[in-house]
Amino acid sequence: MGNQPINRMLKLKTRPEGEVTSENFELIEEEVRDLADGELLIKVLYLSFDPTQRGWLNDVPSYIPPVQIGEVMRAASVGQVVESRNDQFNVGDLVQGSFGWQEYSITTGTDGFMPAQKIPEGIPATSPLSIYGITGLTAYFGMLDIGKPQDGDTVLVSGAAGATGSVAGQIARINGATNIIGIAGGPEKCKWVVEEAGFDSCIDYKNENVAERIPELAPKGLNIYFDNVGGSILEHSLANIALNARVVMCGGISSGYTMERLQAGPSTIFNLIIQRARMEGFIVLDYADRFLDAITELAGWVGEGKVKYQEDIAEGLENCPETLAKLFKGKNFGKQLLKLSDPT
Amino acid sequence: MGNQPINRMLKLKTRPEGEVTSENFELIEEEVRDLADGELLIKVLYLSFDPTQRGWLNDVPSYIPPVQIGEVMRAASVGQVVESRNDQFNVGDLVQGSFGWQEYSITTGTDGFMPAQKIPEGIPATSPLSIYGITGLTAYFGMLDIGKPQDGDTVLVSGAAGATGSVAGQIARINGATNIIGIAGGPEKCKWVVEEAGFDSCIDYKNENVAERIPELAPKGLNIYFDNVGGSILEHSLANIALNARVVMCGGISSGYTMERLQAGPSTIFNLIIQRARMEGFIVLDYADRFLDAITELAGWVGEGKVKYQEDIAEGLENCPETLAKLFKGKNFGKQLLKLSDPT
Repeated sequence: MGNQPINRMLKLKTRPEGEVTSENFELIEEEVRDLADGELLIKVLYLSFDPTQRGWLNDVPSYIPPVQIGEVMRAASVGQVVESRNDQFNVGDLVQGSFGWQEYSITTGTDGFMPAQKIPEGIPATSPLSIYGITGLTAYFGMLDIGKPQDGDTVLVSGAAGATGSVAGQIARINGATNIIGIAGGPEKCKWVVEEAGFDSCIDYKNENVAERIPELAPKGLNIYFDNVGGSILEHSLANIALNARVVMCGGISSGYTMERLQAGPSTIFNLIIQRARMEGFIVLDYADRFLDAITELAGWVGEGKVKYQEDIAEGLENCPETLAKLFKGKNFGKQLLKLSDPT
Repeated sequence: MGNQPINRMLKLKTRPEGEVTSENFELIEEEVRDLADGELLIKVLYLSFDPTQRGWLNDVPSYIPPVQIGEVMRAASVGQVVESRNDQFNVGDLVQGSFGWQEYSITTGTDGFMPAQKIPEGIPATSPLSIYGITGLTAYFGMLDIGKPQDGDTVLVSGAAGATGSVAGQIARINGATNIIGIAGGPEKCKWVVEEAGFDSCIDYKNENVAERIPELAPKGLNIYFDNVGGSILEHSLANIALNARVVMCGGISSGYTMERLQAGPSTIFNLIIQRARMEGFIVLDYADRFLDAITELAGWVGEGKVKYQEDIAEGLENCPETLAKLFKGKNFGKQLLKLSDPT
């Protein structure tokens, strides 16, 4: 067909041990092929960065298959339709889907781990990857379905300046919890957690003693602990759970994704018995049939100013590996995205 | 009143660090005092030995207060009424209650951590402490309310030759589970678990590699793991849970009761997320209002030969401390009791 665009893509070259680096990926340039019937050509605009992506790079069975060597790195993304042989989508449509670390993606609209969906008018193009994306939905289902906040509950959230943690705490407040405590790294993040996200307090784990601060701020114990980090913060939180507490296991950035460096679990786990408490894991993709309802409810809360969120936007395809690594160093502030292009 | 009997009792002298020894208790002899209105004099016949008693010796807040220095050691027990100034009980009645490590106990029938109850006719005097006692009831509520067996489930039970574990596995079978795997120490216990308690298989942790044997015996993963031991067996079990698994935290003999030696928790805890699984603790005393129904159902199963149980009966008040210590060495075989006297 001639004047097809050149696609630049990052393919997995070697599996990382520990931290992801650009060495693990190969930058390939290739002319985009012609579309078959039913296919769309997407120009990728924004990529989402999520801790779970690190898990996809390990060659171990998980809730979805690992990314294979030679495959384009998988990522939730937003793009714009630039060519369509599919009745469901028109050129110019903004869509979200699983387009990966590349500038162009060809899809039938139903392949990948998330089917392509048009983005409703009137919302920012990035929001399907943040507040209305996996991170916001993880906060929603994790807090409401696993945490189950009750009136008057004390709720602790780690990773409280993050895209999931900040929203989880705000959802707990909307649903009756009255003492919302965050944990975040550094005074700037803690200030945002209290002043913007409206938490009652925030423990700066880089400058404060978490083991001492939790019981000071939660004198009646924790009814819910929403865990985004694992490690020693999970250990100290379990030591402070209240009767019938719910520990929501959302992810263990400090311990779980890098399988080569499995850490010991919390020695305080025995407290689950004393307090008749529960620790429960979940995967947000299991709730796919309720995403639309959840997004509608979240959009209402955002519109009323009850839920605030923050995005941290990197740029440049070649910076993808270090942007993923950044998540595990606590360096992002709000939802981590990377911009590849502007919509036309 | 004159010819009152002499009571021999073991009072807590010092709190154990690690293993309980006879050094931690003082043997006191005292004439039994006269009864006040409403009181009973109980001659204690059998004492129950339960891992949770070790926890009562630590000076830390728990689900019931610690035994205080100078107090008679608390224990579930069976006795016979030898004198009564209470309309509810007659001389000669066999009763169960919280009579403690002593030969005689005075009670109003409602004091202690378990109110005194008459033992129904026609059941062995020891059975209210074993199959119809805390250990059997723990198996019942832990398996049915927390484990929730489904048809076709694979169920792993540690401490499978113990009073709780052996019953828990049999209850899982009655309620639809089809692959019941035990873990016990030594070939003699494993033989009993398979041949008498009817488990499909039993891993001898003293002579087999637990990490390898679990996936061999549970190729579809574990739907329920009933944990009686904590430690490395919990670690290996969590590595093999199936989707939506339930991990019943019944007690952590190897890790939890001796607070001075808190061990690291399982590094495999992250698998709760991947498998959307739940780990939940419980305390059987919370189910007190359902004990009678549970005992009735258990008695039916025992009568039909569907639930078998075993008792291990020591003798002599002075042997109480070492009998409690024995539980933590895996030396008992079935429910550990100690006989002080025969009924008249």
